[in-house]
Amino acid sequence: MRWVRYEADGAVRYGILEGEDIAEVSGTPFDAYERTAKRRKLAAVKLLVPVVPPTFYAAGINYMDHIIEQAKLTGREPKVPKKADIGYRANNALIAHGEPIVIPKDATEKVHYEGELVVVIGRKAKHLAEKEALSCVLGYTIGNDVSERSWQAEDRTLWRAKNTDTFKPMGPWIETDVRLDDLVTTVRVNGEQKIRFPTNKMLFGVAHYIAAMSRYLTLHPGDMIWMGTDGASPNLKHGDVVEVEISGIGVLRNPVVREA
Amino acid sequence: MRWVRYEADGAVRYGILEGEDIAEVSGTPFDAYERTAKRRKLAAVKLLVPVVPPTFYAAGINYMDHIIEQAKLTGREPKVPKKADIGYRANNALIAHGEPIVIPKDATEKVHYEGELVVVIGRKAKHLAEKEALSCVLGYTIGNDVSERSWQAEDRTLWRAKNTDTFKPMGPWIETDVRLDDLVTTVRVNGEQKIRFPTNKMLFGVAHYIAAMSRYLTLHPGDMIWMGTDGASPNLKHGDVVEVEISGIGVLRNPVVREA
Repeated sequence: MRWVRYEADGAVRYGILEGEDIAEVSGTPFDAYERTAKRRKLAAVKLLVPVVPPTFYAAGINYMDHIIEQAKLTGREPKVPKKADIGYRANNALIAHGEPIVIPKDATEKVHYEGELVVVIGRKAKHLAEKEALSCVLGYTIGNDVSERSWQAEDRTLWRAKNTDTFKPMGPWIETDVRLDDLVTTVRVNGEQKIRFPTNKMLFGVAHYIAAMSRYLTLHPGDMIWMGTDGASPNLKHGDVVEVEISGIGVLRNPVVREA
Repeated sequence: MRWVRYEADGAVRYGILEGEDIAEVSGTPFDAYERTAKRRKLAAVKLLVPVVPPTFYAAGINYMDHIIEQAKLTGREPKVPKKADIGYRANNALIAHGEPIVIPKDATEKVHYEGELVVVIGRKAKHLAEKEALSCVLGYTIGNDVSERSWQAEDRTLWRAKNTDTFKPMGPWIETDVRLDDLVTTVRVNGEQKIRFPTNKMLFGVAHYIAAMSRYLTLHPGDMIWMGTDGASPNLKHGDVVEVEISGIGVLRNPVVREA
């Protein structure tokens, strides 16, 4: 099942995607919901980010090739995390499928994509063992963890490197029927494939992260976990179009604009 | 004016505190609101955290003595931030005035308070100059940035050191009439004063932080910024009661419990 969140008739709504149509619901996938009689064309609504989370978690470093590529970029030794320490991103930076990534005037040319699997939590959970951890997951969507590498290297935190407005494209929808081992992530710039990797080839997988996190913190409906990315990225420039595809979920497409 | 958020008759509401009474409103201080005819006794409602933010910002290191004390604790050189790089905390960890700080079984004895001024944003803002920056502030409340120092030193991120469930007490209310230079922060454990410092003796003040942040990110109604703390803390133990007072705002009081 695919959950879409959108704006129509001036209100924010959830619906279930069926081909090119949306069956509108009252309520949300995180509470009680009911199908209404209303149907809309997908093409006729404005897609929104599929959820605005209470807490926005991000694994950060979670794939081996990405660690090696980042080490090359910074001239430092590769540092492989020893355990699943979760990090954070910020809601101000979220934009929907189709909306522009806006690079600030004073950013360097080192603005990179990071194509990521996004886990959307469906129910409140604490103290989950790894083998039952996926029971709290509603579904999965796609994120692009856009990063300005010079700010990432220089600032004391990741605030503007990762959380400048528009630096977190996410969508287009939440897919609930996913087999993690089958997923493949592909990133294209202007239609040209730049990278392709097995999505689940993570240092610490989804169930492992959820179990580790939920030992100390309560996961809430709508919380999401961005699972990290593999490999490297070319510099993104004004006029580029970035697509992150995860097989079986969909394609997240965003144009790139540099502030004049 | 003092804004309280509370639970009464099974619903979450905002009201205006007048002495020991609450004048209930419909709506919230972040939208349109109207006073209703309903009045309640402060003592008769359950206080909630005064806001659940879309994004939870935290300055982290922002007072000189705290930098020196932390350097002593870790045996490292004191590192003074050169600019106002904002960090993050997480909503899962928020608890209200009066609720217990619960220390997990496997935490070390190095669990510390950090008494902090909390800025609550009242309206959407971007690209604010420093001299107009305070115009987007609704008011101020009090936070206790409880920290487990061994996890803070060892983990790759601050996730469990700072964001274990219950590690972010906040309240008791939002005070809108504040002169920053007049504020004094006092922290007491079991009634005994442990530290007292001029709240506004920050490396980077509230207006400076807001101006720096809003250059890259949009602040939204309900966002909050925890401004950091000064000095050091004794180890908190089961049975302690921690009070953070900021003159002119109020007292945030929470008992400490260690999981058996």
